[in-house]
Amino acid sequence: MSQSRPSANIGVVGLAVMGSNLARNLASREGNTVAVYNRSPERARTLVAEHPEAGFVASESIEQFAASLAKPRTAIVMVQAGKGTDAVIDQLADLFEDGDIIVDGGNANFHDTIRREHALRERGLNFVGAGISGGEEGALNGPSIMPGGSAEAYATLGPILASIAAVAEGEPCVTHVGTDGAGHFVKMIHNGIEYADMQLIAESYDLLRRVGGHDAEAIAEVFAAWNEGDLESYLIEITAEVLRQTDAATGRPLVDVILDEAGSKGTGVWTVQNSVGLGVPVGGIAEAVFARAVSSKPAQRAAVQATIEARPEIQAPGDGFEDDVRAALYASKVVAYAQGFDVIIAGAKEFGWEISLGDIAKIWRGGCIIRARFLNRIVEAYANNPSLTTLLEDPYFAAAVRDGETAWRRIVATAALSGIPAPGFSAALAYYDSLASERLPAALVQGQRDFFGAHTYRRVDRDGAFHTLWSGDRSEVATA
Amino acid sequence: MSQSRPSANIGVVGLAVMGSNLARNLASREGNTVAVYNRSPERARTLVAEHPEAGFVASESIEQFAASLAKPRTAIVMVQAGKGTDAVIDQLADLFEDGDIIVDGGNANFHDTIRREHALRERGLNFVGAGISGGEEGALNGPSIMPGGSAEAYATLGPILASIAAVAEGEPCVTHVGTDGAGHFVKMIHNGIEYADMQLIAESYDLLRRVGGHDAEAIAEVFAAWNEGDLESYLIEITAEVLRQTDAATGRPLVDVILDEAGSKGTGVWTVQNSVGLGVPVGGIAEAVFARAVSSKPAQRAAVQATIEARPEIQAPGDGFEDDVRAALYASKVVAYAQGFDVIIAGAKEFGWEISLGDIAKIWRGGCIIRARFLNRIVEAYANNPSLTTLLEDPYFAAAVRDGETAWRRIVATAALSGIPAPGFSAALAYYDSLASERLPAALVQGQRDFFGAHTYRRVDRDGAFHTLWSGDRSEVATA
Repeated sequence: MSQSRPSANIGVVGLAVMGSNLARNLASREGNTVAVYNRSPERARTLVAEHPEAGFVASESIEQFAASLAKPRTAIVMVQAGKGTDAVIDQLADLFEDGDIIVDGGNANFHDTIRREHALRERGLNFVGAGISGGEEGALNGPSIMPGGSAEAYATLGPILASIAAVAEGEPCVTHVGTDGAGHFVKMIHNGIEYADMQLIAESYDLLRRVGGHDAEAIAEVFAAWNEGDLESYLIEITAEVLRQTDAATGRPLVDVILDEAGSKGTGVWTVQNSVGLGVPVGGIAEAVFARAVSSKPAQRAAVQATIEARPEIQAPGDGFEDDVRAALYASKVVAYAQGFDVIIAGAKEFGWEISLGDIAKIWRGGCIIRARFLNRIVEAYANNPSLTTLLEDPYFAAAVRDGETAWRRIVATAALSGIPAPGFSAALAYYDSLASERLPAALVQGQRDFFGAHTYRRVDRDGAFHTLWSGDRSEVATA
Repeated sequence: MSQSRPSANIGVVGLAVMGSNLARNLASREGNTVAVYNRSPERARTLVAEHPEAGFVASESIEQFAASLAKPRTAIVMVQAGKGTDAVIDQLADLFEDGDIIVDGGNANFHDTIRREHALRERGLNFVGAGISGGEEGALNGPSIMPGGSAEAYATLGPILASIAAVAEGEPCVTHVGTDGAGHFVKMIHNGIEYADMQLIAESYDLLRRVGGHDAEAIAEVFAAWNEGDLESYLIEITAEVLRQTDAATGRPLVDVILDEAGSKGTGVWTVQNSVGLGVPVGGIAEAVFARAVSSKPAQRAAVQATIEARPEIQAPGDGFEDDVRAALYASKVVAYAQGFDVIIAGAKEFGWEISLGDIAKIWRGGCIIRARFLNRIVEAYANNPSLTTLLEDPYFAAAVRDGETAWRRIVATAALSGIPAPGFSAALAYYDSLASERLPAALVQGQRDFFGAHTYRRVDRDGAFHTLWSGDRSEVATA
């Protein structure tokens, strides 16, 4: 299975499910010859044997793999994020030459990507951190791809990635996001929004179940119906599928036999950490991360449940309850996306990237987990006004929130009164109400800060910084 | 003003307000002779001239300062956190000898403190990161002090710190928190809780104002009355003071002329970043950090306000509205503290510290910004059961939440329906309801994750990890 002449235009290192599927996807496209390599060669042999149609050029050593690539050598690394990535990159970097391209297609932390890109650039190599979303199936049939790195690297790599990406509205779901870590940064935000999306769906389900009184199957039909309208999206679609599933062992809905402790892989945590560091409020995303965390504390849950004497009475659902939930879900989703795009703006400013928000919305329309009809609206919003201060000021989204606002408020109130946790809905609503309030009690906070820490405050009626001599005669002094 | 023989038992480097006040506090205690040094000597000269009673030993060079300290030399660095701290520490480390003690009394990031402690320990020096809370006034009259570092260093340093700390219930507000960065970690959590406390007070004020219809002066009296009960605390007390203050220039309440954009200094952000990294849900604290952030986005606020056609009608306050707000504030505060103590437990585990939660509650009872009668209840809770799974399972706190629960729910509902942002109240309630719910929709999230990413799920009825073949025949397979 070796190959003496360099004949492949693209290679894949790491042949677990994602890597194998990406390699098969590449091989299926006109003009690609795909080199493959895996540390344990058994996996490569199996892949080649199972997919003779792919015409893989397989190597048993990484040296042989490098030799099998035509120049400029282009290799996509698909290994577990972390130290393994550094090891593979180092090996490739030793074998690659000026102008060759190493792509990290894993879920790397963008800080690592920035570090790696700078180190490899000094050695004359191109390093591209590329976020890839769509799971196993997306990798095989067309993911959404978010590559960073240099424009030079993208000139070679772009067409190859475009050949395998999902297509939405006739356009491949890939764009050159920005330099160095921009791609992995945007992938991180994609995942943060995905957390929020899933949490909002989960809250909707919980309310339909516990307040609406529907069973899982009936709620599956509600989601399926929602998937015909503004909420049409992959996550709504698969929610209906999950809720329809009956557990063969018990005959019960599968959702009732799944342990209710949600796991996570880190990108949600990174989104919150970076957002808060950038000064961007992301309650919609953070509450989703927290909701998974609290679900995974069985000891605390049991301890609190042991203290309870009576749970609150569930409120009567009222007419149009399902529509109310749908409206709350849509409005909260708008907020979560507005917050996500805010973080992209702040990250681009902080790290020196030029990111087209409209292009990001475009490449999220297909292939990725958060793909949704909704994203066309975001594309339009940024086409109409590329420098929106917030997505919420776009006329379509402003109207969407206005139209759903009353229902949204009813749902948050109902959840609070009924004892049903709706942290995503309520954080999103509080965020909207904070922006919408002419005056905020932040003025009191500034007064407190000035009192105990002489942090000073500004005034509504004139410029400068001021301090009240709280422990003196309580007169005000200008400090700047 | 020089001194040839080492005569001081403690020194202070950095004589801005906090440093000067701490030096004066030290000098006022029996048995202390205090060396002082500031990079620009003018400040030291002024301090000595203005406080001849202190008997300061002032130096014009750091070499002279080091020489003025008796062994083991003990110096408290009170400079702006960040690079300035490293520079001063390096200078002192070059002059100090085996067993000498360098204390960083600034608001350092505990990760920096861990790094510095390890580096100095290798050089035979003791480094103590000590959180100091209480602002300027606390520094002068008795702060709450949270020192980390080695037990050896604490043997020398502890009695000196105990001599200047605040006293609560007869005990000085200082304890050896744990090794290396433990002190600054706990100070960070103190500040995170402070953010939450302030935000909850701000939400209470906003509701009393906009729903209750009270003016600032009347609300000052409400807070003053609350300060006689369970809510008695420094922050409630100064809130009443701030709300009582009339602006001399306009004759209006000061809180109405303060610009409503809240600032922050970083410890709140660190708390959220570290908590989420440790897997601890801290919605009560995070929403406070986000609330400050959103208040400081005037362009976004104006943009959203321009889209509004009508704000929701303010709900009628109903009988006992003030009591409802008080109950919501108290219950939410319990949640914020429970979350803060959870982070301390998680941090102690992650970084190898032995932290007595009861001792932390004790030293927060006096001197610091969050000092409150309430902390006696936390001291009692951990005395009764040092290994509480959550503060919320302690009988007193469980009862406190139960007693306030219905009011808390009414307040969150009223805020949502009235368009008044109450992110702290609602996040805290959602957290409580998440713990209190027997089943969470996290099960659906696990189903979704298994569908799109084959992340597997656990079952309620047997051990192991399972995956449904979603794109196959939809049978279930055991994966581990």
